[in-house]
Amino acid sequence: MTETSSFTPQAHTGSDDLSSSIQRWAVKVEYNGTGLVGWQRQTNGPSVQEFLEHAASCIAGKRTVNSITAGRTDAGVHATGQVAHLDFPADIALKPHQVRDGLSYYLKPHAIAVIQAAPVPPDWSARFSATWRSYRYRILNRPTRAALGAGLLWHVRGHLDIDLMQEAGNHLLGLHDFTSFRAAACQANSPVRSIDHLHVARHDDEVHVTVKARSFLHHQVRNIVGTLVLTGHKRWKPERVAEALAARRRSAAGPTAPPDGLYLTGVGYDPDPFA
Amino acid sequence: MTETSSFTPQAHTGSDDLSSSIQRWAVKVEYNGTGLVGWQRQTNGPSVQEFLEHAASCIAGKRTVNSITAGRTDAGVHATGQVAHLDFPADIALKPHQVRDGLSYYLKPHAIAVIQAAPVPPDWSARFSATWRSYRYRILNRPTRAALGAGLLWHVRGHLDIDLMQEAGNHLLGLHDFTSFRAAACQANSPVRSIDHLHVARHDDEVHVTVKARSFLHHQVRNIVGTLVLTGHKRWKPERVAEALAARRRSAAGPTAPPDGLYLTGVGYDPDPFA
Repeated sequence: MTETSSFTPQAHTGSDDLSSSIQRWAVKVEYNGTGLVGWQRQTNGPSVQEFLEHAASCIAGKRTVNSITAGRTDAGVHATGQVAHLDFPADIALKPHQVRDGLSYYLKPHAIAVIQAAPVPPDWSARFSATWRSYRYRILNRPTRAALGAGLLWHVRGHLDIDLMQEAGNHLLGLHDFTSFRAAACQANSPVRSIDHLHVARHDDEVHVTVKARSFLHHQVRNIVGTLVLTGHKRWKPERVAEALAARRRSAAGPTAPPDGLYLTGVGYDPDPFA
Repeated sequence: MTETSSFTPQAHTGSDDLSSSIQRWAVKVEYNGTGLVGWQRQTNGPSVQEFLEHAASCIAGKRTVNSITAGRTDAGVHATGQVAHLDFPADIALKPHQVRDGLSYYLKPHAIAVIQAAPVPPDWSARFSATWRSYRYRILNRPTRAALGAGLLWHVRGHLDIDLMQEAGNHLLGLHDFTSFRAAACQANSPVRSIDHLHVARHDDEVHVTVKARSFLHHQVRNIVGTLVLTGHKRWKPERVAEALAARRRSAAGPTAPPDGLYLTGVGYDPDPFA
Protein backbone atom coordinates (compact mmCIF):
# COMPACT_ATOMS: atom_id res chain seq x y z
CA MET A 1 0.00 0.00 0.00
CA THR A 2 2.97 2.40 -0.30
CA GLU A 3 2.39 5.07 -2.89
CA THR A 4 5.30 5.52 -5.25
CA SER A 5 5.88 9.12 -6.20
CA SER A 6 4.73 9.19 -9.78
CA PHE A 7 4.58 12.99 -9.83
CA THR A 8 7.57 14.29 -11.77
CA PRO A 9 6.75 17.67 -13.30
CA GLN A 10 8.40 17.94 -16.69
CA ALA A 11 9.56 21.54 -16.44
CA HIS A 12 10.30 21.78 -12.74
CA THR A 13 13.93 22.96 -12.85
CA GLY A 14 15.87 25.65 -10.99
CA SER A 15 13.70 28.39 -9.55
CA ASP A 16 10.59 27.51 -11.56
CA ASP A 17 7.48 27.59 -9.45
CA LEU A 18 5.65 24.28 -9.64
CA SER A 19 2.37 26.12 -10.15
CA SER A 20 3.63 27.79 -13.30
CA SER A 21 4.35 24.57 -15.19
CA ILE A 22 1.35 22.45 -14.37
CA GLN A 23 -2.37 22.73 -13.77
CA ARG A 24 -3.61 20.15 -11.32
CA TRP A 25 -7.10 18.71 -11.83
CA ALA A 26 -9.16 16.62 -9.44
CA VAL A 27 -11.31 14.01 -11.18
CA LYS A 28 -14.09 11.77 -9.88
CA VAL A 29 -13.99 8.38 -11.57
CA GLU A 30 -16.50 5.52 -11.97
CA TYR A 31 -15.33 2.10 -13.11
CA ASN A 32 -16.14 -1.57 -13.35
CA GLY A 33 -13.08 -3.32 -11.93
CA THR A 34 -13.90 -6.67 -13.59
CA GLY A 35 -10.94 -7.69 -15.76
CA LEU A 36 -8.69 -4.93 -14.44
CA VAL A 37 -5.63 -5.52 -12.23
CA GLY A 38 -6.89 -2.67 -10.03
CA TRP A 39 -6.19 1.04 -9.87
CA GLN A 40 -2.42 0.92 -9.97
CA ARG A 41 -0.44 0.51 -13.17
CA GLN A 42 1.13 -2.95 -13.31
CA THR A 43 2.93 -5.03 -15.89
CA ASN A 44 0.57 -8.01 -15.67
CA GLY A 45 -2.63 -6.44 -16.98
CA PRO A 46 -4.74 -3.37 -17.63
CA SER A 47 -5.25 -0.83 -14.83
CA VAL A 48 -7.44 2.21 -14.29
CA GLN A 49 -4.30 4.34 -13.83
CA GLU A 50 -2.85 3.24 -17.18
CA PHE A 51 -6.06 4.02 -19.09
CA LEU A 52 -6.67 7.32 -17.26
CA GLU A 53 -3.11 8.60 -17.80
CA HIS A 54 -3.25 7.50 -21.44
CA ALA A 55 -6.52 9.42 -21.90
CA ALA A 56 -4.94 12.47 -20.24
CA SER A 57 -1.89 12.29 -22.48
CA CYS A 58 -4.20 12.28 -25.52
CA ILE A 59 -5.62 15.60 -24.30
CA ALA A 60 -2.13 16.90 -23.48
CA GLY A 61 -0.74 16.40 -26.99
CA LYS A 62 0.86 13.07 -26.13
CA ARG A 63 2.86 14.54 -23.23
CA THR A 64 3.03 12.43 -20.06
CA VAL A 65 0.37 13.18 -17.44
CA ASN A 66 0.82 11.54 -14.05
CA SER A 67 -1.90 10.77 -11.55
CA ILE A 68 -2.23 10.14 -7.82
CA THR A 69 -5.32 8.45 -6.43
CA ALA A 70 -7.19 8.62 -3.13
CA GLY A 71 -7.47 4.86 -2.81
CA ARG A 72 -5.69 2.21 -4.86
CA THR A 73 -8.42 -0.36 -5.32
CA ASP A 74 -7.47 -4.01 -5.89
CA ALA A 75 -8.14 -6.15 -8.94
CA GLY A 76 -11.87 -6.65 -9.50
CA VAL A 77 -12.92 -3.85 -7.11
CA HIS A 78 -15.28 -1.21 -8.51
CA ALA A 79 -15.76 2.51 -7.92
CA THR A 80 -18.66 4.92 -8.17
CA GLY A 81 -16.74 7.82 -6.61
CA GLN A 82 -12.99 7.26 -6.84
CA VAL A 83 -10.95 10.50 -6.83
CA ALA A 84 -7.57 11.15 -8.43
CA HIS A 85 -5.56 14.18 -9.40
CA LEU A 86 -3.84 14.73 -12.72
CA ASP A 87 -1.12 17.23 -13.59
CA PHE A 88 -1.69 18.71 -17.01
CA PRO A 89 0.85 21.01 -18.66
CA ALA A 90 -0.25 24.55 -17.77
CA ASP A 91 -0.09 25.70 -21.39
CA ILE A 92 -3.34 23.86 -22.23
CA ALA A 93 -6.41 25.88 -21.29
CA LEU A 94 -9.11 23.46 -20.21
CA LYS A 95 -12.58 23.90 -18.75
CA PRO A 96 -14.03 21.39 -16.28
CA HIS A 97 -16.45 19.88 -18.78
CA GLN A 98 -13.64 19.53 -21.31
CA VAL A 99 -11.49 17.58 -18.85
CA ARG A 100 -14.49 15.43 -17.85
CA ASP A 101 -15.72 14.75 -21.38
CA GLY A 102 -12.26 14.55 -22.98
CA LEU A 103 -11.03 11.96 -20.50
CA SER A 104 -14.27 9.96 -20.75
CA TYR A 105 -13.98 10.05 -24.54
CA TYR A 106 -10.42 8.74 -24.60
CA LEU A 107 -11.28 6.15 -21.91
CA LYS A 108 -13.61 4.42 -24.38
CA PRO A 109 -14.30 1.54 -24.80
CA HIS A 110 -13.21 0.67 -21.28
CA ALA A 111 -15.78 0.58 -18.46
CA ILE A 112 -14.18 3.66 -16.92
CA ALA A 113 -15.63 7.19 -17.00
CA VAL A 114 -14.78 10.56 -15.47
CA ILE A 115 -17.98 11.96 -14.00
CA GLN A 116 -16.63 15.23 -12.54
CA ALA A 117 -13.52 17.39 -12.91
CA ALA A 118 -12.35 20.45 -11.01
CA PRO A 119 -9.16 22.55 -11.05
CA VAL A 120 -7.26 22.39 -7.75
CA PRO A 121 -4.16 24.13 -6.36
CA PRO A 122 -0.81 22.43 -7.03
CA ASP A 123 -0.43 21.43 -3.37
CA TRP A 124 -3.85 19.71 -3.31
CA SER A 125 -3.54 15.93 -3.21
CA ALA A 126 -6.25 13.38 -3.99
CA ARG A 127 -4.47 11.14 -1.49
CA PHE A 128 -3.19 13.41 1.29
CA SER A 129 -5.98 15.99 1.27
CA ALA A 130 -8.66 13.30 1.70
CA THR A 131 -10.45 13.39 5.05
CA TRP A 132 -12.49 10.20 4.60
CA ARG A 133 -13.14 7.27 2.27
CA SER A 134 -16.42 5.36 2.00
CA TYR A 135 -17.03 1.88 0.63
CA ARG A 136 -20.10 -0.21 -0.04
CA TYR A 137 -19.98 -3.98 -0.13
CA ARG A 138 -22.85 -5.67 -2.02
CA ILE A 139 -23.76 -9.26 -1.14
CA LEU A 140 -26.33 -11.19 -3.20
CA ASN A 141 -28.07 -13.30 -0.55
CA ARG A 142 -30.22 -15.88 -2.34
CA PRO A 143 -29.85 -19.50 -3.46
CA THR A 144 -29.13 -18.68 -7.11
CA ARG A 145 -25.95 -17.07 -8.45
CA ALA A 146 -26.04 -13.58 -9.96
CA ALA A 147 -27.03 -13.25 -13.60
CA LEU A 148 -27.55 -9.50 -14.09
CA GLY A 149 -25.03 -8.73 -11.33
CA ALA A 150 -22.31 -11.20 -12.37
CA GLY A 151 -18.95 -9.73 -11.27
CA LEU A 152 -20.72 -6.96 -9.38
CA LEU A 153 -21.84 -8.84 -6.25
CA TRP A 154 -20.59 -11.52 -3.85
CA HIS A 155 -23.03 -14.43 -3.99
CA VAL A 156 -23.66 -15.82 -0.49
CA ARG A 157 -26.13 -18.66 0.01
CA GLY A 158 -27.96 -19.17 3.30
CA HIS A 159 -30.00 -16.42 4.90
CA LEU A 160 -27.93 -13.65 6.50
CA ASP A 161 -29.26 -12.15 9.71
CA ILE A 162 -28.43 -8.48 9.29
CA ASP A 163 -29.19 -7.62 12.92
CA LEU A 164 -26.45 -10.01 14.05
CA MET A 165 -24.10 -8.61 11.39
CA GLN A 166 -24.76 -5.07 12.60
CA GLU A 167 -24.24 -6.10 16.24
CA ALA A 168 -20.90 -7.68 15.26
CA GLY A 169 -19.90 -4.66 13.20
CA ASN A 170 -20.58 -2.30 16.09
CA HIS A 171 -17.58 -3.85 17.89
CA LEU A 172 -15.36 -2.46 15.13
CA LEU A 173 -16.54 1.15 15.38
CA GLY A 174 -14.03 3.69 16.68
CA LEU A 175 -10.22 3.67 16.99
CA HIS A 176 -8.65 0.19 17.05
CA ASP A 177 -5.58 -1.80 16.11
CA PHE A 178 -6.92 -3.61 13.02
CA THR A 179 -4.06 -6.12 12.66
CA SER A 180 -6.61 -8.96 12.58
CA PHE A 181 -8.32 -7.40 9.54
CA ARG A 182 -5.19 -6.39 7.62
CA ALA A 183 -3.68 -8.19 4.63
CA ALA A 184 -0.22 -9.70 5.16
CA ALA A 185 0.97 -7.57 2.25
CA CYS A 186 -0.30 -4.31 3.81
CA GLN A 187 2.50 -1.75 3.88
CA ALA A 188 0.87 0.92 6.05
CA ASN A 189 3.10 2.07 8.91
CA SER A 190 0.42 1.61 11.55
CA PRO A 191 -2.41 -0.92 11.90
CA VAL A 192 -4.46 1.61 13.87
CA ARG A 193 -7.51 2.98 12.09
CA SER A 194 -10.78 4.56 13.13
CA ILE A 195 -14.02 3.27 11.61
CA ASP A 196 -16.54 6.08 11.87
CA HIS A 197 -19.52 4.37 10.26
CA LEU A 198 -20.50 0.75 9.64
CA HIS A 199 -24.04 -0.02 8.55
CA VAL A 200 -25.63 -3.27 7.42
CA ALA A 201 -28.90 -3.10 5.46
CA ARG A 202 -31.01 -5.46 3.38
CA HIS A 203 -32.49 -4.45 0.02
CA ASP A 204 -34.60 -7.43 -1.15
CA ASP A 205 -32.07 -10.14 -2.06
CA GLU A 206 -29.07 -7.92 -1.42
CA VAL A 207 -27.26 -7.16 1.83
CA HIS A 208 -25.16 -3.99 1.78
CA VAL A 209 -22.37 -3.17 4.23
CA THR A 210 -21.35 0.49 4.13
CA VAL A 211 -18.22 1.69 5.94
CA LYS A 212 -16.52 5.02 6.31
CA ALA A 213 -13.11 5.90 7.77
CA ARG A 214 -10.35 8.44 7.33
CA SER A 215 -8.36 5.69 5.64
CA PHE A 216 -8.35 1.90 5.39
CA LEU A 217 -5.75 -0.85 5.59
CA HIS A 218 -5.18 -3.23 2.69
CA HIS A 219 -8.14 -5.67 2.41
CA GLN A 220 -9.66 -4.17 5.59
CA VAL A 221 -13.19 -3.86 4.23
CA ARG A 222 -13.12 -7.28 2.55
CA ASN A 223 -11.79 -8.92 5.74
CA ILE A 224 -14.48 -7.21 7.81
CA VAL A 225 -17.24 -8.33 5.42
CA GLY A 226 -15.91 -11.89 5.31
CA THR A 227 -16.05 -11.94 9.10
CA LEU A 228 -19.49 -10.34 9.40
CA VAL A 229 -20.91 -13.01 7.08
CA LEU A 230 -19.86 -15.65 9.66
CA THR A 231 -22.03 -13.86 12.22
CA GLY A 232 -24.88 -13.40 9.72
CA HIS A 233 -24.87 -17.19 9.21
CA LYS A 234 -24.83 -17.67 13.03
CA ARG A 235 -21.57 -19.58 12.79
CA TRP A 236 -20.00 -16.87 14.99
CA LYS A 237 -21.63 -14.95 17.82
CA PRO A 238 -21.27 -11.20 17.40
CA GLU A 239 -18.96 -10.99 20.47
CA ARG A 240 -16.41 -13.18 18.72
CA VAL A 241 -15.69 -10.27 16.37
CA ALA A 242 -14.58 -8.22 19.38
CA GLU A 243 -12.34 -11.10 20.44
CA ALA A 244 -10.92 -11.39 16.92
CA LEU A 245 -10.14 -7.66 16.94
CA ALA A 246 -8.43 -7.90 20.35
CA ALA A 247 -6.31 -10.85 19.22
CA ARG A 248 -4.37 -8.64 16.77
CA ARG A 249 -3.75 -11.68 14.62
CA ARG A 250 -5.06 -12.07 11.04
CA SER A 251 -5.95 -15.72 11.59
CA ALA A 252 -8.24 -14.77 14.46
CA ALA A 253 -10.69 -13.05 12.06
CA GLY A 254 -12.76 -14.45 9.20
CA PRO A 255 -11.91 -14.96 5.52
CA THR A 256 -11.41 -12.25 2.91
CA ALA A 257 -14.55 -11.49 0.91
CA PRO A 258 -13.99 -11.49 -2.88
CA PRO A 259 -13.39 -8.19 -4.70
CA ASP A 260 -16.55 -8.45 -6.85
CA GLY A 261 -18.89 -6.90 -4.28
CA LEU A 262 -16.68 -3.97 -3.24
CA TYR A 263 -17.28 -0.39 -4.39
CA LEU A 264 -15.30 2.72 -3.47
CA THR A 265 -18.29 5.05 -3.24
CA GLY A 266 -16.76 8.33 -2.18
CA VAL A 267 -13.78 10.33 -0.95
CA GLY A 268 -14.20 13.40 1.22
CA TYR A 269 -12.30 16.70 1.08
CA ASP A 270 -12.69 19.93 2.98
CA PRO A 271 -13.54 21.95 1.00
CA ASP A 272 -15.00 19.60 -1.61
CA PRO A 273 -13.41 20.53 -4.98
CA PHE A 274 -16.46 19.16 -6.82
CA ALA A 275 -19.03 21.14 -4.83
CA MET B 1 -45.42 -10.96 -31.52
CA THR B 2 -47.31 -14.11 -32.49
CA GLU B 3 -46.36 -17.04 -30.38
CA THR B 4 -45.67 -20.18 -32.37
CA SER B 5 -46.83 -23.31 -30.65
CA SER B 6 -43.58 -24.87 -29.55
CA PHE B 7 -45.34 -27.24 -27.16
CA THR B 8 -45.36 -30.68 -28.72
CA PRO B 9 -45.55 -33.31 -26.00
CA GLN B 10 -43.49 -36.33 -27.03
CA ALA B 11 -45.89 -39.01 -25.83
CA HIS B 12 -49.21 -37.32 -26.49
CA THR B 13 -50.85 -39.83 -28.80
CA GLY B 14 -54.30 -41.34 -28.93
CA SER B 15 -56.17 -41.25 -25.67
CA ASP B 16 -53.11 -40.46 -23.53
CA ASP B 17 -53.80 -37.82 -20.95
CA LEU B 18 -51.41 -34.89 -21.35
CA SER B 19 -50.87 -34.76 -17.61
CA SER B 20 -49.58 -38.33 -17.52
CA SER B 21 -46.71 -37.71 -19.93
CA ILE B 22 -45.35 -34.39 -18.79
CA GLN B 23 -44.79 -32.40 -15.63
CA ARG B 24 -45.08 -28.68 -16.23
CA TRP B 25 -42.82 -26.35 -14.24
CA ALA B 26 -43.06 -22.58 -13.89
CA VAL B 27 -39.66 -20.88 -13.63
CA LYS B 28 -38.70 -17.31 -12.75
CA VAL B 29 -35.70 -16.18 -14.78
CA GLU B 30 -33.17 -13.36 -14.42
CA TYR B 31 -30.92 -12.41 -17.34
CA ASN B 32 -28.67 -9.80 -18.83
CA GLY B 33 -29.92 -9.35 -22.39
CA THR B 34 -26.67 -7.79 -23.64
CA GLY B 35 -25.36 -9.86 -26.53
CA LEU B 36 -28.52 -11.96 -26.80
CA VAL B 37 -31.01 -11.79 -29.69
CA GLY B 38 -33.78 -11.71 -27.08
CA TRP B 39 -35.97 -14.32 -25.45
CA GLN B 40 -37.05 -16.19 -28.57
CA ARG B 41 -34.90 -18.79 -30.30
CA GLN B 42 -33.59 -17.41 -33.60
CA THR B 43 -31.07 -18.49 -36.18
CA ASN B 44 -29.03 -15.28 -36.04
CA GLY B 45 -27.68 -15.50 -32.50
CA PRO B 46 -27.99 -16.79 -28.94
CA SER B 47 -31.34 -16.51 -27.15
CA VAL B 48 -32.57 -17.07 -23.60
CA GLN B 49 -35.00 -19.72 -24.89
CA GLU B 50 -32.24 -21.69 -26.58
CA PHE B 51 -30.05 -21.71 -23.46
CA LEU B 52 -32.95 -22.47 -21.10
CA GLU B 53 -34.29 -25.35 -23.20
CA HIS B 54 -30.77 -26.72 -23.59
CA ALA B 55 -30.28 -26.62 -19.81
CA ALA B 56 -33.64 -28.36 -19.35
CA SER B 57 -32.73 -31.07 -21.83
CA CYS B 58 -29.53 -31.72 -19.86
CA ILE B 59 -31.69 -32.43 -16.80
CA ALA B 60 -34.14 -34.50 -18.88
CA GLY B 61 -31.51 -36.92 -20.18
CA LYS B 62 -31.06 -35.08 -23.48
CA ARG B 63 -34.78 -35.30 -24.31
CA THR B 64 -36.36 -32.17 -25.80
CA VAL B 65 -37.98 -29.79 -23.33
CA ASN B 66 -40.04 -26.97 -24.78
CA SER B 67 -40.81 -23.66 -23.14
CA ILE B 68 -43.40 -20.92 -23.37
CA THR B 69 -42.68 -17.48 -21.93
CA ALA B 70 -44.83 -14.74 -20.45
CA GLY B 71 -43.14 -12.01 -22.45
CA ARG B 72 -40.76 -12.38 -25.36
CA THR B 73 -38.24 -9.64 -24.65
CA ASP B 74 -36.27 -8.12 -27.55
CA ALA B 75 -32.54 -8.22 -28.16
CA GLY B 76 -30.63 -6.39 -25.41
CA VAL B 77 -33.61 -6.26 -23.01
CA HIS B 78 -33.01 -7.61 -19.50
CA ALA B 79 -35.19 -9.40 -16.95
CA THR B 80 -35.23 -9.65 -13.18
CA GLY B 81 -38.54 -11.55 -13.07
CA GLN B 82 -39.30 -13.19 -16.42
CA VAL B 83 -41.56 -16.26 -16.16
CA ALA B 84 -41.69 -19.28 -18.45
CA HIS B 85 -43.05 -22.79 -18.25
CA LEU B 86 -41.18 -25.93 -19.19
CA ASP B 87 -42.61 -29.38 -19.88
CA PHE B 88 -40.38 -32.07 -18.43
CA PRO B 89 -41.03 -35.77 -19.07
CA ALA B 90 -43.14 -36.94 -16.14
CA ASP B 91 -40.84 -39.89 -15.44
CA ILE B 92 -38.20 -37.63 -13.87
CA ALA B 93 -38.97 -36.85 -10.24
CA LEU B 94 -37.77 -33.31 -9.50
CA LYS B 95 -38.03 -31.04 -6.50
CA PRO B 96 -38.33 -27.26 -6.91
CA HIS B 97 -34.77 -26.57 -5.74
CA GLN B 98 -33.46 -29.23 -8.14
CA VAL B 99 -35.18 -27.58 -11.10
CA ARG B 100 -33.95 -24.14 -9.99
CA ASP B 101 -30.36 -25.18 -9.27
CA GLY B 102 -30.09 -27.69 -12.10
CA LEU B 103 -31.22 -25.19 -14.73
CA SER B 104 -28.98 -22.45 -13.27
CA TYR B 105 -26.05 -24.88 -13.32
CA TYR B 106 -26.51 -25.84 -16.97
CA LEU B 107 -27.13 -22.17 -17.89
CA LYS B 108 -23.52 -21.35 -16.94
CA PRO B 109 -21.54 -19.42 -18.05
CA HIS B 110 -24.32 -17.33 -19.56
CA ALA B 111 -25.72 -14.34 -17.65
CA ILE B 112 -29.00 -16.20 -17.19
CA ALA B 113 -30.19 -17.80 -13.95
CA VAL B 114 -33.38 -19.46 -12.70
CA ILE B 115 -34.22 -17.93 -9.34
CA GLN B 116 -37.45 -19.83 -8.57
CA ALA B 117 -39.21 -22.98 -9.80
CA ALA B 118 -42.65 -24.39 -9.01
CA PRO B 119 -44.69 -27.35 -10.35
CA VAL B 120 -47.89 -26.23 -12.10
CA PRO B 121 -50.88 -28.06 -13.64
CA PRO B 122 -50.55 -29.01 -17.31
CA ASP B 123 -53.15 -26.42 -18.33
CA TRP B 124 -51.25 -23.59 -16.60
CA SER B 125 -49.56 -21.26 -19.07
CA ALA B 126 -46.79 -18.76 -18.38
CA ARG B 127 -48.29 -16.73 -21.20
CA PHE B 128 -52.05 -17.18 -21.01
CA SER B 129 -52.42 -17.45 -17.23
CA ALA B 130 -50.57 -14.16 -16.67
CA THR B 131 -52.76 -11.36 -15.30
CA TRP B 132 -50.15 -8.59 -15.53
CA ARG B 133 -46.61 -7.75 -16.63
CA SER B 134 -44.39 -5.07 -15.12
CA TYR B 135 -41.38 -3.34 -16.61
CA ARG B 136 -38.81 -0.88 -15.33
CA TYR B 137 -36.90 1.42 -17.67
CA ARG B 138 -33.61 2.81 -16.26
CA ILE B 139 -32.26 6.07 -17.68
CA LEU B 140 -28.81 7.37 -16.65
CA ASN B 141 -29.34 11.13 -16.61
CA ARG B 142 -25.94 12.81 -16.32
CA PRO B 143 -23.36 14.28 -18.69
CA THR B 144 -21.05 11.25 -18.64
CA ARG B 145 -21.79 7.86 -20.21
CA ALA B 146 -22.28 4.79 -18.04
CA ALA B 147 -19.17 2.92 -16.89
CA LEU B 148 -20.46 0.48 -14.26
CA GLY B 149 -23.88 0.37 -15.94
CA ALA B 150 -22.70 -0.01 -19.55
CA GLY B 151 -25.38 -1.97 -21.44
CA LEU B 152 -27.72 -1.74 -18.46
CA LEU B 153 -28.96 1.85 -18.79
CA TRP B 154 -29.96 4.35 -21.45
CA HIS B 155 -27.64 7.34 -21.21
CA VAL B 156 -29.57 10.60 -21.64
CA ARG B 157 -27.76 13.93 -21.34
CA GLY B 158 -29.58 17.11 -20.29
CA HIS B 159 -31.58 17.29 -17.09
CA LEU B 160 -34.90 15.45 -17.19
CA ASP B 161 -37.83 17.03 -15.35
CA ILE B 162 -39.55 14.01 -13.84
CA ASP B 163 -42.66 15.96 -12.86
CA LEU B 164 -43.28 16.80 -16.52
CA MET B 165 -42.59 13.18 -17.50
CA GLN B 166 -45.10 11.96 -14.92
CA GLU B 167 -47.69 14.49 -16.08
CA ALA B 168 -47.20 13.29 -19.66
CA GLY B 169 -47.33 9.65 -18.60
CA ASN B 170 -50.62 10.18 -16.78
CA HIS B 171 -52.28 10.75 -20.17
CA LEU B 172 -51.46 7.14 -21.05
CA LEU B 173 -53.07 5.57 -17.98
CA GLY B 174 -56.18 3.45 -18.55
CA LEU B 175 -57.64 1.80 -21.64
CA HIS B 176 -56.51 3.28 -24.97
CA ASP B 177 -55.74 2.47 -28.57
CA PHE B 178 -51.92 2.49 -28.44
CA THR B 179 -51.32 2.44 -32.22
CA SER B 180 -49.04 5.49 -31.84
CA PHE B 181 -46.79 3.55 -29.45
CA ARG B 182 -46.75 0.22 -31.28
CA ALA B 183 -43.94 -1.13 -33.47
CA ALA B 184 -44.75 -1.55 -37.16
CA ALA B 185 -43.82 -5.23 -36.75
CA CYS B 186 -46.27 -5.77 -33.89
CA GLN B 187 -48.51 -8.73 -34.63
CA ALA B 188 -51.05 -8.35 -31.82
CA ASN B 189 -54.66 -8.51 -33.04
CA SER B 190 -55.67 -5.34 -31.23
CA PRO B 191 -53.79 -2.11 -30.46
CA VAL B 192 -55.98 -1.56 -27.39
CA ARG B 193 -54.22 -1.99 -24.08
CA SER B 194 -54.80 -0.78 -20.52
CA ILE B 195 -51.87 0.74 -18.62
CA ASP B 196 -52.67 0.35 -14.94
CA HIS B 197 -49.56 1.96 -13.49
CA LEU B 198 -46.96 4.40 -14.81
CA HIS B 199 -44.57 6.01 -12.35
CA VAL B 200 -41.53 8.20 -12.96
CA ALA B 201 -38.96 8.56 -10.16
CA ARG B 202 -35.44 9.89 -9.76
CA HIS B 203 -32.75 8.00 -7.85
CA ASP B 204 -29.65 10.24 -7.86
CA ASP B 205 -28.39 10.20 -11.46
CA GLU B 206 -30.98 7.67 -12.60
CA VAL B 207 -34.56 8.21 -13.73
CA HIS B 208 -36.77 5.11 -13.57
CA VAL B 209 -40.04 4.64 -15.41
CA THR B 210 -42.11 1.73 -14.07
CA VAL B 211 -45.16 0.49 -15.95
CA LYS B 212 -47.67 -2.27 -15.39
CA ALA B 213 -50.38 -3.65 -17.68
CA ARG B 214 -52.17 -6.90 -18.37
CA SER B 215 -50.08 -7.11 -21.55
CA PHE B 216 -48.03 -4.84 -23.78
CA LEU B 217 -47.66 -4.25 -27.50
CA HIS B 218 -44.32 -4.70 -29.27
CA HIS B 219 -41.95 -1.83 -28.31
CA GLN B 220 -44.76 -0.19 -26.33
CA VAL B 221 -42.67 0.56 -23.23
CA ARG B 222 -39.66 1.73 -25.24
CA ASN B 223 -41.86 3.99 -27.40
CA ILE B 224 -43.50 5.45 -24.29
CA VAL B 225 -40.13 6.11 -22.63
CA GLY B 226 -38.68 7.68 -25.80
CA THR B 227 -41.70 10.00 -25.87
CA LEU B 228 -41.62 10.85 -22.16
CA VAL B 229 -37.97 11.91 -22.51
CA LEU B 230 -39.08 14.59 -24.98
CA THR B 231 -41.32 16.02 -22.27
CA GLY B 232 -38.60 15.68 -19.61
CA HIS B 233 -36.35 17.79 -21.83
CA LYS B 234 -39.19 20.32 -22.29
CA ARG B 235 -39.12 19.79 -26.06
CA TRP B 236 -42.73 18.57 -25.81
CA LYS B 237 -45.45 19.81 -23.48
CA PRO B 238 -47.08 16.97 -21.52
CA GLU B 239 -50.40 17.52 -23.37
CA ARG B 240 -48.72 16.65 -26.66
CA VAL B 241 -48.50 13.04 -25.44
CA ALA B 242 -52.30 12.94 -25.21
CA GLU B 243 -52.46 14.31 -28.78
CA ALA B 244 -49.95 11.72 -29.97
CA LEU B 245 -52.06 8.97 -28.40
CA ALA B 246 -55.24 10.28 -30.02
CA ALA B 247 -53.56 10.45 -33.46
CA ARG B 248 -53.29 6.63 -33.61
CA ARG B 249 -50.24 6.99 -35.85
CA ARG B 250 -46.77 5.79 -34.87
CA SER B 251 -45.12 8.89 -36.35
CA ALA B 252 -47.15 11.11 -34.02
CA ALA B 253 -45.27 9.81 -30.96
CA GLY B 254 -41.59 10.05 -30.02
CA PRO B 255 -38.65 7.79 -30.87
CA THR B 256 -38.05 4.26 -29.57
CA ALA B 257 -35.78 4.16 -26.51
CA PRO B 258 -32.90 1.65 -26.81
CA PRO B 259 -33.26 -1.83 -25.29
CA ASP B 260 -30.37 -1.36 -22.80
CA GLY B 261 -32.45 0.32 -20.10
CA LEU B 262 -35.45 -2.03 -20.19
CA TYR B 263 -36.11 -4.72 -17.56
CA LEU B 264 -39.02 -7.15 -17.36
CA THR B 265 -39.40 -7.03 -13.57
CA GLY B 266 -42.36 -9.28 -12.93
CA VAL B 267 -45.31 -11.28 -14.19
CA GLY B 268 -48.45 -11.78 -12.12
CA TYR B 269 -50.58 -14.89 -11.72
CA ASP B 270 -53.60 -15.67 -9.57
CA PRO B 271 -52.71 -17.69 -7.62
CA ASP B 272 -48.96 -17.01 -7.72
CA PRO B 273 -47.22 -20.37 -8.33
CA PHE B 274 -44.07 -19.05 -6.61
CA ALA B 275 -45.80 -17.89 -3.42
